[in-house]
Amino acid sequence: MFFHAVYFYPREDAQPGDAETLAAGCRTLAAIPGLTFFQVGHTAGTPRDVVDNTYAVALLTAFTDVAGHDVYQDHPIHLAFIAANKHLWGRVQVYDSLVE
Amino acid sequence: MFFHAVYFYPREDAQPGDAETLAAGCRTLAAIPGLTFFQVGHTAGTPRDVVDNTYAVALLTAFTDVAGHDVYQDHPIHLAFIAANKHLWGRVQVYDSLVE
Repeated sequence: MFFHAVYFYPREDAQPGDAETLAAGCRTLAAIPGLTFFQVGHTAGTPRDVVDNTYAVALLTAFTDVAGHDVYQDHPIHLAFIAANKHLWGRVQVYDSLVE
Repeated sequence: MFFHAVYFYPREDAQPGDAETLAAGCRTLAAIPGLTFFQVGHTAGTPRDVVDNTYAVALLTAFTDVAGHDVYQDHPIHLAFIAANKHLWGRVQVYDSLVE
């Protein structure tokens, strides 16, 4: 399994509703073929030093293998999502993991 | 759903086999009640600027709710895992997400 976790951080001039708009945008990605896991969330605010609570939206996805992830990256729905929403985040942090 | 992602980074004096030992330790956590998702992986090495490829082991878990996560944190199996393996990582980065 190829697990692809994306954490979106607010832009400097974040506006009320940005996170909800971005989360809605993320949900359009569920239509991309090949996903074996798909969840959109937000920080749980866990009060522990090792927890990053500063991101706005979490996009948690998985594919059978790296080939599935590569199809997703280049899929028109993914490219349209980026074009329509990239103004809503300051930066993204991605963790890709192979699970055997 | 409460998603709990933990990324373990190598210690400065990392030794060959550390990641495999740590991953094996992580797998003991699967026995903790309440888990609805459980995967242990390693970096996929995706060559993209936004991807963090520097961690050694990914522990990807989920629970029905925050109460399940709280039980997990304090569970004897979790505490034993930390005691037995904490010398194997330099730091951990945790992302807790609420999915609705």
